[in-house]
Amino acid sequence: MIERAGPSCVAVKPQLACFERLGAPGWAALSETVSAAQDAGLLVIADGKRGDVPVTAAAYAQALVGETPTPWGPVPGLGADAFTANPLLGRDALEPLLAAAAAAGAGIFVLVRTSNPGAADLMDLPAPDQPLHERLAALVDELAPSLIGTGGLSGLGAVVGATEPEHIARLRELMPRSVFLLPGVGAQGGQPELLGAAFAPGPAAALVSSSRGIASAPDPGAAAEELRGIVWKISGG
Amino acid sequence: MIERAGPSCVAVKPQLACFERLGAPGWAALSETVSAAQDAGLLVIADGKRGDVPVTAAAYAQALVGETPTPWGPVPGLGADAFTANPLLGRDALEPLLAAAAAAGAGIFVLVRTSNPGAADLMDLPAPDQPLHERLAALVDELAPSLIGTGGLSGLGAVVGATEPEHIARLRELMPRSVFLLPGVGAQGGQPELLGAAFAPGPAAALVSSSRGIASAPDPGAAAEELRGIVWKISGG
Repeated sequence: MIERAGPSCVAVKPQLACFERLGAPGWAALSETVSAAQDAGLLVIADGKRGDVPVTAAAYAQALVGETPTPWGPVPGLGADAFTANPLLGRDALEPLLAAAAAAGAGIFVLVRTSNPGAADLMDLPAPDQPLHERLAALVDELAPSLIGTGGLSGLGAVVGATEPEHIARLRELMPRSVFLLPGVGAQGGQPELLGAAFAPGPAAALVSSSRGIASAPDPGAAAEELRGIVWKISGG
Repeated sequence: MIERAGPSCVAVKPQLACFERLGAPGWAALSETVSAAQDAGLLVIADGKRGDVPVTAAAYAQALVGETPTPWGPVPGLGADAFTANPLLGRDALEPLLAAAAAAGAGIFVLVRTSNPGAADLMDLPAPDQPLHERLAALVDELAPSLIGTGGLSGLGAVVGATEPEHIARLRELMPRSVFLLPGVGAQGGQPELLGAAFAPGPAAALVSSSRGIASAPDPGAAAEELRGIVWKISGG
């Protein structure tokens, strides 16, 4: 898949669950996949949606973008370029992830409004004066300065589902500096043509993610290239 | 630790982050730890706080309590007796976990109000007429009948931090059938003497979890036995 679809992509997003379910050999395959993607010039977004109390969040950061000291020397983690994170546990649970990402030059995509129908159950709740996803967006924007890059965009990004494009312009207003990760195109029904508002800060301001839409296509290379063409247009090149 | 503290405990709660950061060998060690604990007669709660869109949630369930079909035959998952889950993605994201737990005879502890200070940032938000953690509790209670056991308790449980005991009585009212997992005793400052309300449905209705409080004690066996004595008293034996 990296060989066939990679040339039309800027990043791959391995879904950690699909490797974990194969146990230790699965984790070894994940590590090999990360290396193969990076060798092909692709960024790797480790999609595990981790979130835990601060001491444990620090351990997840070691697993994803850091290393772990042991009596036998440091053990490197996955070496991902970015990872997804679940913010339910609050600001103190995000801080160890931010510190590790800053140290590693990595990025984070915080779940703000996911692409599944059930996302409405909690993330759209009025809480009390604004939907919970807008509160999450405010938290992301507040923390974004700690990962600002030279181009003015922040490596503290947000997951905003492509299935609900009506949220994108508003969330872009609330998070003007954050890179958006937009999943849900393809199998989940999101239409890439409707995602232009995510690119308001510039063509590097969002990543349109299609997993099954590319991986399950008869010709994954052609599917990736078709999506690349659409993203090129909506992003202003 | 299983040998020394296990005889005073009913369950162990391996923190997945601490194994994952060691890569494939870490995952192998996790699998061995699960087996060793079960061989010692302990229940295993895989603490990974997973949560994802439905198709991915199903893969996490395979990793934790199920198995994964492959062309070379099914690959068994960890075989945990229960696991922790993050409900931010909503009801449809919990449903595949519930179905897998029911099929495996396993339990789930849904994050309702965690033990870290930052939990207040989102889980205590008024949303709009009740704190978000009460909304999460209502969701857990609504889904609880699908995992009711012969004793009347549900295997769809809740994580309720022991650091904020003032929430426990109210959350017990809202989730009268769910087993509570109460982390935060010890290193995080929770006092086990204040957790009695969690046991209102009976002595099997809650698990008091102490990780660093036992594992970092000079004598882990004695620390576990001291906690067991307190839990015996507050649970009504």
